[in-house]
Amino acid sequence: MPKLRVHNFAVSLDGYAAGPGQDRDNPLGRGGLAMHEWFFSTRTFRRMHGQDGGDAGIDDDFAARCTENVGAWIIGRNMFGPVRGPWVDESWKGWWGENPPFHTAVIVLTNHARPSLPMDGGTVFHFVTEGIEAALTRAMEAADSRDVVVGGGVSTIHQYLRAHFVDQMHLAVAPILLGCGESFFNGIDLRRLGYEVTDHTSSEKVTHVVISKQSPLREQAERTAACCREHGNGI
Amino acid sequence: MPKLRVHNFAVSLDGYAAGPGQDRDNPLGRGGLAMHEWFFSTRTFRRMHGQDGGDAGIDDDFAARCTENVGAWIIGRNMFGPVRGPWVDESWKGWWGENPPFHTAVIVLTNHARPSLPMDGGTVFHFVTEGIEAALTRAMEAADSRDVVVGGGVSTIHQYLRAHFVDQMHLAVAPILLGCGESFFNGIDLRRLGYEVTDHTSSEKVTHVVISKQSPLREQAERTAACCREHGNGI
Repeated sequence: MPKLRVHNFAVSLDGYAAGPGQDRDNPLGRGGLAMHEWFFSTRTFRRMHGQDGGDAGIDDDFAARCTENVGAWIIGRNMFGPVRGPWVDESWKGWWGENPPFHTAVIVLTNHARPSLPMDGGTVFHFVTEGIEAALTRAMEAADSRDVVVGGGVSTIHQYLRAHFVDQMHLAVAPILLGCGESFFNGIDLRRLGYEVTDHTSSEKVTHVVISKQSPLREQAERTAACCREHGNGI
Repeated sequence: MPKLRVHNFAVSLDGYAAGPGQDRDNPLGRGGLAMHEWFFSTRTFRRMHGQDGGDAGIDDDFAARCTENVGAWIIGRNMFGPVRGPWVDESWKGWWGENPPFHTAVIVLTNHARPSLPMDGGTVFHFVTEGIEAALTRAMEAADSRDVVVGGGVSTIHQYLRAHFVDQMHLAVAPILLGCGESFFNGIDLRRLGYEVTDHTSSEKVTHVVISKQSPLREQAERTAACCREHGNGI
């Protein structure tokens, strides 16, 4: 069975996945870029962007997984760009230039239809307006038995977690404090949803954590849900 | 200058310092004990409780710091015990038996006065009802030029952080998901308060993070506060 995976998703020590003030100059919000420095220096990141060099080691081992057996990506509209509301024109083609690093179909979750957008290097952006299940179906078709990666942001990943569609999620916890911004852990009870930490490894720069869906999901979810409902602080 | 320090304060990957349902049988809330397993197996923890053996290594190095140059502790009432409201009698003497592991003065922050309580091994619980500054003054007097440790829980540590009294804080981030409970990072903007991560080391069991107050505090706090206020998600 093809899997739905999350990779290289950076959160700060205090749980933020983006700093405040996301805009065209700060796609990760102010301060947010620092969480990704471990990734930028890896061999994998540099190769994805057509550059030589970069570091091998633990960080690169984790980074590289996002390219292994992946046939399609799903991203939220804010990850595609800073444009909000209806598309004024079709000039915005993503943050990544003419040759984006995906090289697969990329399903963009949006409320506003737009024709598919083929880019150099095999990336094709498809804009899906019928919700997360339709986007997943479209991505699985495009992936042709390979896995699908959910790229982000927080809202998109949360929707797929709540629907129990995410099989495995790799978080990179950066030892920095953002203080405010978009929280990854607020508003979602991963334990109740049946997820557990299955790997935990640190490099000098970051702590890598793998969170996996447990089976049988329903039994575990019900057991923990009862506890959280009782105390009114679950979701 | 004597310092105010936090040591061995465990939080889950999703940012909870205690599970839901704290009571006499579950002083750390349900599921909360698992965050402290790294500590229980250290040589330091076992020595503090009169036992031989235990593991050396990174975890023990961090654990041991809570005993170095410490002259007094401050703890919140919930860390002292499960009794709420006025003291019905004086039978509750803390979670730790006749010989608590502090061996110093321990200032208990409470709204309900009670006579000081000397225990075996040099620990004396003092109950302070005049707030965090009075408790700190009392602790510093008792510490006699050594440092003071704030033991917890979340509310007590937050009060000392917000007042900029905490100089250094060691968190042990356990690779487990609690899903709900008492969040450590919600409701406090550590960056705005002038704190930064100054050390980050992992063992097999846990990621140790040291957070330190930066100088000049005011300048930094103002710079980051402006950013968070603007976006309405600071505290």
